Amino acid sequence: MTSFSLDPRIEADTVPVVDLGLSTVRLMNDSNYPWLVLVPRRPGLVELLDLSPVERAVLIEEVAAAGEALRNSAPCHKLNVAALGNMVPQLHVHVIARLRTDAAWPGPVWGVVPAAPWPEGARDALVTAVRGRLRRG
Amino acid sequence: MTSFSLDPRIEADTVPVVDLGLSTVRLMNDSNYPWLVLVPRRPGLVELLDLSPVERAVLIEEVAAAGEALRNSAPCHKLNVAALGNMVPQLHVHVIARLRTDAAWPGPVWGVVPAAPWPEGARDALVTAVRGRLRRG
Repeated sequence: MTSFSLDPRIEADTVPVVDLGLSTVRLMNDSNYPWLVLVPRRPGLVELLDLSPVERAVLIEEVAAAGEALRNSAPCHKLNVAALGNMVPQLHVHVIARLRTDAAWPGPVWGVVPAAPWPEGARDALVTAVRGRLRRG
Repeated sequence: MTSFSLDPRIEADTVPVVDLGLSTVRLMNDSNYPWLVLVPRRPGLVELLDLSPVERAVLIEEVAAAGEALRNSAPCHKLNVAALGNMVPQLHVHVIARLRTDAAWPGPVWGVVPAAPWPEGARDALVTAVRGRLRRG
Protein backbone atom coordinates (compact mmCIF):
# COMPACT_ATOMS: atom_id res chain seq x y z
CA MET A 1 0.00 0.00 0.00
CA THR A 2 1.44 3.32 -1.10
CA SER A 3 0.91 6.49 0.86
CA PHE A 4 -0.23 9.85 -0.45
CA SER A 5 2.31 12.27 -1.80
CA LEU A 6 1.61 15.54 -3.56
CA ASP A 7 2.45 15.63 -7.28
CA PRO A 8 5.74 17.55 -7.60
CA ARG A 9 4.29 19.91 -10.23
CA ILE A 10 1.43 20.89 -7.92
CA GLU A 11 3.89 21.26 -5.05
CA ALA A 12 6.16 23.51 -7.15
CA ASP A 13 3.31 25.76 -8.35
CA THR A 14 1.56 26.27 -5.00
CA VAL A 15 2.05 27.08 -1.33
CA PRO A 16 0.30 25.26 1.54
CA VAL A 17 -2.82 26.76 3.13
CA VAL A 18 -4.41 24.14 5.40
CA ASP A 19 -5.33 20.46 5.57
CA LEU A 20 -9.06 19.70 5.71
CA GLY A 21 -10.56 16.28 6.53
CA LEU A 22 -9.96 14.88 3.06
CA SER A 23 -8.07 17.47 1.03
CA THR A 24 -4.91 19.45 1.40
CA VAL A 25 -5.60 23.05 0.30
CA ARG A 26 -2.90 24.97 -1.56
CA LEU A 27 -2.73 28.50 -3.04
CA MET A 28 -1.50 28.74 -6.62
CA ASN A 29 1.47 31.10 -6.67
CA ASP A 30 -0.08 33.26 -9.40
CA SER A 31 -1.28 36.72 -8.48
CA ASN A 32 -3.30 36.98 -11.69
CA TYR A 33 -6.09 35.14 -9.89
CA PRO A 34 -6.81 34.20 -6.26
CA TRP A 35 -6.68 30.44 -6.92
CA LEU A 36 -6.87 27.47 -4.57
CA VAL A 37 -6.15 23.85 -5.41
CA LEU A 38 -7.66 21.03 -3.33
CA VAL A 39 -5.96 17.64 -3.46
CA PRO A 40 -7.65 14.70 -1.71
CA ARG A 41 -4.99 12.98 0.39
CA ARG A 42 -5.51 9.46 -0.95
CA PRO A 43 -2.94 7.72 -3.16
CA GLY A 44 -3.68 6.79 -6.75
CA LEU A 45 -6.68 9.04 -7.43
CA VAL A 46 -7.21 10.33 -10.97
CA GLU A 47 -10.96 10.77 -11.56
CA LEU A 48 -13.77 11.85 -9.23
CA LEU A 49 -15.01 8.31 -9.94
CA ASP A 50 -12.02 6.95 -8.00
CA LEU A 51 -13.53 8.35 -4.78
CA SER A 52 -16.36 6.67 -2.88
CA PRO A 53 -19.71 8.50 -2.75
CA VAL A 54 -19.02 9.48 0.87
CA GLU A 55 -15.61 10.87 -0.09
CA ARG A 56 -17.20 12.79 -2.98
CA ALA A 57 -19.73 14.33 -0.60
CA VAL A 58 -16.88 15.39 1.68
CA LEU A 59 -14.88 16.75 -1.26
CA ILE A 60 -17.72 18.87 -2.64
CA GLU A 61 -18.26 20.37 0.84
CA GLU A 62 -14.55 21.16 1.07
CA VAL A 63 -14.74 22.74 -2.40
CA ALA A 64 -17.74 24.81 -1.31
CA ALA A 65 -16.00 25.89 1.89
CA ALA A 66 -12.85 26.79 -0.04
CA GLY A 67 -14.91 28.85 -2.46
CA GLU A 68 -16.67 30.67 0.34
CA ALA A 69 -13.39 31.37 2.16
CA LEU A 70 -11.76 32.56 -1.05
CA ARG A 71 -14.54 34.93 -2.12
CA ASN A 72 -14.60 36.39 1.39
CA SER A 73 -10.83 36.93 1.33
CA ALA A 74 -10.29 38.38 -2.15
CA PRO A 75 -12.23 40.33 -4.77
CA CYS A 76 -14.51 37.92 -6.66
CA HIS A 77 -17.27 38.28 -9.22
CA LYS A 78 -17.60 34.54 -9.97
CA LEU A 79 -16.10 31.32 -8.68
CA ASN A 80 -14.71 28.82 -11.18
CA VAL A 81 -14.46 25.19 -10.05
CA ALA A 82 -12.79 22.51 -12.16
CA ALA A 83 -11.22 19.06 -12.06
CA LEU A 84 -9.34 18.68 -15.34
CA GLY A 85 -6.11 16.72 -14.85
CA ASN A 86 -5.01 16.60 -18.46
CA MET A 87 -1.45 17.60 -17.56
CA VAL A 88 -1.19 16.50 -13.92
CA PRO A 89 -3.22 13.32 -13.49
CA GLN A 90 -3.30 13.37 -9.65
CA LEU A 91 -6.91 14.28 -8.79
CA HIS A 92 -7.08 17.96 -7.86
CA VAL A 93 -9.83 20.56 -7.90
CA HIS A 94 -9.25 24.18 -8.86
CA VAL A 95 -11.28 26.86 -7.03
CA ILE A 96 -10.62 30.23 -8.62
CA ALA A 97 -11.94 33.70 -7.80
CA ARG A 98 -12.63 35.41 -11.11
CA LEU A 99 -12.99 39.12 -11.78
CA ARG A 100 -14.59 40.64 -14.86
CA THR A 101 -11.33 42.59 -15.20
CA ASP A 102 -8.89 39.67 -14.87
CA ALA A 103 -6.45 38.59 -17.58
CA ALA A 104 -8.52 35.71 -18.90
CA TRP A 105 -12.14 36.84 -18.38
CA PRO A 106 -14.56 35.52 -19.55
CA GLY A 107 -12.55 32.49 -20.67
CA PRO A 108 -10.97 29.89 -18.38
CA VAL A 109 -7.65 30.80 -16.78
CA TRP A 110 -5.42 27.97 -17.96
CA GLY A 111 -2.64 28.89 -20.36
CA VAL A 112 -3.75 32.47 -21.00
CA VAL A 113 -0.99 34.48 -19.31
CA PRO A 114 2.17 33.33 -17.54
CA ALA A 115 1.94 32.95 -13.79
CA ALA A 116 2.93 36.12 -11.93
CA PRO A 117 4.19 35.04 -8.50
CA TRP A 118 2.53 36.80 -5.55
CA PRO A 119 4.51 39.42 -3.66
CA GLU A 120 5.36 37.62 -0.44
CA GLY A 121 3.33 39.90 1.84
CA ALA A 122 0.16 39.74 -0.23
CA ARG A 123 0.52 35.99 -0.60
CA ASP A 124 0.93 35.44 3.12
CA ALA A 125 -2.00 37.73 3.92
CA LEU A 126 -4.27 35.80 1.55
CA VAL A 127 -3.10 32.44 2.88
CA THR A 128 -3.72 33.59 6.44
CA ALA A 129 -7.18 34.92 5.62
CA VAL A 130 -8.28 31.78 3.77
CA ARG A 131 -6.78 29.45 6.39
CA GLY A 132 -8.53 31.33 9.18
CA ARG A 133 -11.90 31.10 7.47
CA LEU A 134 -11.47 27.39 6.68
CA ARG A 135 -10.44 26.59 10.26
CA ARG A 136 -13.40 28.51 11.67
CA GLY A 137 -15.76 26.93 9.12
CA MET B 1 -41.62 32.10 -6.42
CA THR B 2 -40.20 31.59 -9.88
CA SER B 3 -39.89 28.18 -11.47
CA PHE B 4 -36.85 26.68 -13.15
CA SER B 5 -36.23 27.35 -16.80
CA LEU B 6 -33.15 26.43 -18.79
CA ASP B 7 -30.97 29.33 -19.88
CA PRO B 8 -31.71 29.92 -23.60
CA ARG B 9 -28.00 29.76 -24.52
CA ILE B 10 -27.62 26.35 -22.91
CA GLU B 11 -30.83 25.23 -24.56
CA ALA B 12 -29.62 26.40 -27.98
CA ASP B 13 -26.20 24.71 -27.69
CA THR B 14 -27.40 21.33 -26.39
CA VAL B 15 -29.91 18.53 -26.87
CA PRO B 16 -31.76 16.79 -24.02
CA VAL B 17 -30.52 13.46 -22.67
CA VAL B 18 -32.40 12.66 -19.45
CA ASP B 19 -33.62 14.22 -16.21
CA LEU B 20 -32.01 12.92 -13.02
CA GLY B 21 -33.25 13.63 -9.49
CA LEU B 22 -31.75 17.11 -9.35
CA SER B 23 -30.23 17.88 -12.73
CA THR B 24 -31.34 17.89 -16.31
CA VAL B 25 -28.61 16.31 -18.45
CA ARG B 26 -27.94 17.71 -21.93
CA LEU B 27 -25.44 16.82 -24.68
CA MET B 28 -23.46 19.71 -26.14
CA ASN B 29 -24.02 19.72 -29.90
CA ASP B 30 -20.30 19.71 -30.63
CA SER B 31 -18.76 16.57 -32.07
CA ASN B 32 -15.25 17.78 -31.21
CA TYR B 33 -15.80 16.34 -27.73
CA PRO B 34 -18.40 14.03 -26.14
CA TRP B 35 -19.65 16.66 -23.69
CA LEU B 36 -22.51 16.63 -21.22
CA VAL B 37 -23.91 19.60 -19.30
CA LEU B 38 -25.80 19.07 -16.02
CA VAL B 39 -28.12 21.84 -14.87
CA PRO B 40 -29.72 21.55 -11.41
CA ARG B 41 -33.46 22.22 -11.85
CA ARG B 42 -33.76 24.93 -9.20
CA PRO B 43 -34.39 28.59 -10.06
CA GLY B 44 -31.85 31.27 -9.34
CA LEU B 45 -28.71 29.16 -8.85
CA VAL B 46 -25.34 30.66 -9.79
CA GLU B 47 -22.67 29.16 -7.53
CA LEU B 48 -22.29 25.69 -6.00
CA LEU B 49 -22.66 27.65 -2.74
CA ASP B 50 -26.28 28.38 -3.67
CA LEU B 51 -27.12 24.69 -3.20
CA SER B 52 -27.64 23.06 0.20
CA PRO B 53 -25.07 20.47 1.31
CA VAL B 54 -27.56 17.69 0.56
CA GLU B 55 -28.17 19.08 -2.93
CA ARG B 56 -24.40 19.31 -3.48
CA ALA B 57 -24.00 15.66 -2.48
CA VAL B 58 -26.72 14.72 -4.97
CA LEU B 59 -25.15 16.88 -7.68
CA ILE B 60 -21.67 15.40 -7.31
CA GLU B 61 -23.16 11.88 -7.55
CA GLU B 62 -25.04 12.91 -10.70
CA VAL B 63 -21.79 14.35 -12.08
CA ALA B 64 -19.99 11.09 -11.27
CA ALA B 65 -22.75 9.01 -12.88
CA ALA B 66 -22.72 11.23 -15.97
CA GLY B 67 -18.95 10.85 -16.23
CA GLU B 68 -19.16 7.09 -15.93
CA ALA B 69 -21.95 6.88 -18.50
CA LEU B 70 -20.05 9.13 -20.87
CA ARG B 71 -16.73 7.32 -20.69
CA ASN B 72 -18.53 4.02 -21.24
CA SER B 73 -20.34 5.43 -24.28
CA ALA B 74 -17.53 7.26 -26.10
CA PRO B 75 -13.75 7.13 -26.40
CA CYS B 76 -12.21 8.80 -23.33
CA HIS B 77 -8.72 9.17 -21.92
CA LYS B 78 -9.66 11.68 -19.18
CA LEU B 79 -12.82 13.26 -17.84
CA ASN B 80 -12.90 17.02 -17.38
CA VAL B 81 -15.45 18.40 -14.89
CA ALA B 82 -16.05 22.12 -14.47
CA ALA B 83 -18.51 24.70 -13.17
CA LEU B 84 -17.40 28.04 -14.62
CA GLY B 85 -20.40 30.22 -15.48
CA ASN B 86 -18.49 33.29 -16.60
CA MET B 87 -20.65 33.66 -19.71
CA VAL B 88 -23.86 31.87 -18.70
CA PRO B 89 -24.45 32.49 -14.99
CA GLN B 90 -27.09 29.74 -14.52
CA LEU B 91 -25.31 27.04 -12.48
CA HIS B 92 -24.26 24.23 -14.82
CA VAL B 93 -21.56 21.57 -14.70
CA HIS B 94 -19.61 20.45 -17.74
CA VAL B 95 -18.61 16.76 -17.96
CA ILE B 96 -16.37 16.24 -20.96
CA ALA B 97 -14.68 13.12 -22.35
CA ARG B 98 -11.20 14.15 -23.44
CA LEU B 99 -8.90 12.35 -25.85
CA ARG B 100 -5.17 12.94 -26.14
CA THR B 101 -5.88 13.50 -29.84
CA ASP B 102 -8.74 15.99 -29.51
CA ALA B 103 -8.64 19.56 -30.81
CA ALA B 104 -7.82 21.21 -27.48
CA TRP B 105 -5.70 18.61 -25.65
CA PRO B 106 -4.12 19.13 -23.15
CA GLY B 107 -5.77 22.51 -22.60
CA PRO B 108 -9.39 23.07 -21.64
CA VAL B 109 -11.97 22.91 -24.42
CA TRP B 110 -13.61 26.32 -24.17
CA GLY B 111 -13.04 28.68 -27.08
CA VAL B 112 -10.40 26.61 -28.86
CA VAL B 113 -12.23 25.51 -32.01
CA PRO B 114 -15.73 26.33 -33.24
CA ALA B 115 -18.44 23.84 -32.35
CA ALA B 116 -18.92 21.17 -35.03
CA PRO B 117 -22.52 19.96 -34.77
CA TRP B 118 -22.91 16.18 -34.47
CA PRO B 119 -24.19 14.25 -37.48
CA GLU B 120 -27.74 13.39 -36.44
CA GLY B 121 -27.22 9.62 -36.33
CA ALA B 122 -24.07 9.75 -34.22
CA ARG B 123 -25.65 12.29 -31.89
CA ASP B 124 -28.77 10.19 -31.37
CA ALA B 125 -26.69 7.05 -30.79
CA LEU B 126 -24.61 8.79 -28.12
CA VAL B 127 -27.68 10.29 -26.44
CA THR B 128 -29.37 6.88 -26.40
CA ALA B 129 -26.27 5.17 -24.96
CA VAL B 130 -25.74 7.77 -22.21
CA ARG B 131 -29.44 7.92 -21.35
CA GLY B 132 -29.63 4.13 -21.08
CA ARG B 133 -26.66 3.98 -18.73
CA LEU B 134 -27.97 6.82 -16.55
CA ARG B 135 -31.43 5.24 -16.32
CA ARG B 136 -29.98 1.84 -15.38
CA GLY B 137 -27.53 3.44 -12.91
